[in-house]
Amino acid sequence: MEFNIISRDDNARAGIIKTGRGGINTPAFMPVGTNGTVKALGPDDLKSIGAEIMLCNTYHLYLRPGHETIKKLGGLHRFINWDRPILTDSGGFQVYSLSKLRKIEKEGVRFQSHLDGSTHFIGPKEAMEIQKALNADIVMTFDECTPYPAGYDYALKSLELTTEWAKICKSLYSGEQALYGIIQGSTYRDLRERSAEEIISIGFDGYAIGGVSVGEPKDLMYGAIDICTPLMPDNAPRYLMGIGDIHDILHAVSHGIDMFDCVMPTRNARNGTLFTSRGRISIKRTEFREDPNPPDPECGCYTCRNFSNAYLRHLFLNREILSMRLNTIHNLTFYMDFFRSMRESIKDGQFKRFYRRWMSINFGSSGNSVEE
Amino acid sequence: MEFNIISRDDNARAGIIKTGRGGINTPAFMPVGTNGTVKALGPDDLKSIGAEIMLCNTYHLYLRPGHETIKKLGGLHRFINWDRPILTDSGGFQVYSLSKLRKIEKEGVRFQSHLDGSTHFIGPKEAMEIQKALNADIVMTFDECTPYPAGYDYALKSLELTTEWAKICKSLYSGEQALYGIIQGSTYRDLRERSAEEIISIGFDGYAIGGVSVGEPKDLMYGAIDICTPLMPDNAPRYLMGIGDIHDILHAVSHGIDMFDCVMPTRNARNGTLFTSRGRISIKRTEFREDPNPPDPECGCYTCRNFSNAYLRHLFLNREILSMRLNTIHNLTFYMDFFRSMRESIKDGQFKRFYRRWMSINFGSSGNSVEE
Repeated sequence: MEFNIISRDDNARAGIIKTGRGGINTPAFMPVGTNGTVKALGPDDLKSIGAEIMLCNTYHLYLRPGHETIKKLGGLHRFINWDRPILTDSGGFQVYSLSKLRKIEKEGVRFQSHLDGSTHFIGPKEAMEIQKALNADIVMTFDECTPYPAGYDYALKSLELTTEWAKICKSLYSGEQALYGIIQGSTYRDLRERSAEEIISIGFDGYAIGGVSVGEPKDLMYGAIDICTPLMPDNAPRYLMGIGDIHDILHAVSHGIDMFDCVMPTRNARNGTLFTSRGRISIKRTEFREDPNPPDPECGCYTCRNFSNAYLRHLFLNREILSMRLNTIHNLTFYMDFFRSMRESIKDGQFKRFYRRWMSINFGSSGNSVEE
Repeated sequence: MEFNIISRDDNARAGIIKTGRGGINTPAFMPVGTNGTVKALGPDDLKSIGAEIMLCNTYHLYLRPGHETIKKLGGLHRFINWDRPILTDSGGFQVYSLSKLRKIEKEGVRFQSHLDGSTHFIGPKEAMEIQKALNADIVMTFDECTPYPAGYDYALKSLELTTEWAKICKSLYSGEQALYGIIQGSTYRDLRERSAEEIISIGFDGYAIGGVSVGEPKDLMYGAIDICTPLMPDNAPRYLMGIGDIHDILHAVSHGIDMFDCVMPTRNARNGTLFTSRGRISIKRTEFREDPNPPDPECGCYTCRNFSNAYLRHLFLNREILSMRLNTIHNLTFYMDFFRSMRESIKDGQFKRFYRRWMSINFGSSGNSVEE
């Protein structure tokens, strides 16, 4: 993996991550394909939309169909028929957020599957093994995603564990896949700083800010960004995990973040909420009953080119499967277009203007979430 | 509307129905788009699959979003963005099968919506009005779909009502849309003959056999085909309503039926049952867990070209939306290919061979059904 910064505009940066499976222009948004599919879309749809990378969940794919099965079938790319880059998370977040009766031990986490209650164990060694079998292009270290709120002592112990596990992951690093380290430290400045220092001193291909989007107030999340970004190496991609709110993205990019993932566009789509250049709209509203216009006249997506708000409302109210597909195509196109314009604004030295323009649009409550 | 028979092979016929929105090669299969969408697919998908006509349900579209709304938005084609022919049923079948507390009167049927219990009235006059507003290319007379079982006296009264209503529909016929008459008569030979005679004497652009696929045993359904087809005009399309079982289709085509509709391929797809050249398969079966092959190596559909049984099984077990889409694309392609080969076999004078070949494949239980 190679990372080149092409342009800077204050702290914002536009660059490109080069992988064996193609380039990823940054700042980049990664659609979330939890089970090996971005919900309601196929890989050809993602390409039409312009997605250059997708994120898949190690935890989910480990449980079903199993990483050994995927390995036998030629790896994740072949399994899902997606030949562009894939990033897999390490499973750390899901082990905490989804599984039952988890027990954190020195070597990893013992937990019960949210699907069938079966008992499993994943630690740094297992996470690396699973991610190797999946054969993603970018893999993540196994961390403890410190919950919010966490007392100082808990957060300290948690970050120490994350550092220990990060060392183990690094020791198992083969160089075939890019490996990103994850910074924890909860809401404490000194712990964030300490975690950043420890993770960076181990040395990774990229660095992520984890332990955000776990229920903390927005100012604390912004705080984590503000504390961590100045400490993160300039020449490596910086990834803010699980954040997808437009205003949050603007804040993060203004501090030099390069990568994002979030289920916001996709989950909202399935709930009938569409992103437009004038804010969010709820397609079920009566005002759209006889509206012949598309959701966003400025949007060139398949949905906006072909269908009216009236039809989209009709499909949504009838719980038609096509509703989820068309809404998802629109929302992801919106995100891809937003990121493309953002990259251009950085290249043109116009990011401040871009920032102000988009900050002035009300997108409602955050809804950052990493779980579909 | 124009109908030309191109080839005959015994009683089987291959022809073309010409409409202002394009031709329909017969024998034709019409995918069912109940609410103005073939479940899980968009209009572009249907075109890729080779569908030349789709069926939409008057009853459903009348209730939601309402025919007046669709009319205001430029008609059904524009509303759903499908520029090829559409056939709308008259609502007769759904009024009986879906609605609550229906009461049959001389002028039509009073019923309660299955959606919200609201009271409505549809008779021949209303059915023609609604279908005119929807602006389908082919519309159906409003009939009483005689239930099974029905006593002789009930069946007689029912067919008399259907004839009266057919006359009213004909009297409202503007010529802008093709109008098909529906033959009833339940399971009684003389009543089927009488209904055929009465409906044919009114004179329509095409003729349908109704009151089948309502729970009757297969031999009685075959009986209705055998009784009616010799009486139906040779120079008009013949439509067997609601039948989609492969063996039933073969029987009907061998008796000169030209048009079919059924939810079999689409509903089965969503339930994980796929049609292949070797019979039906259930994609959830363990045997497919690590199977890198497509559902049907002989199939050229998007699903078979791009995905393995292992991935399709994974998507189905995870209830992924993409599962429904990929399975539906496959099953409808299977039907379109089956009908294309059948037409070719008729043109080549090889229908008997085609018939025997496909009759030898076990497709399991019928599952004919007109309701998604």
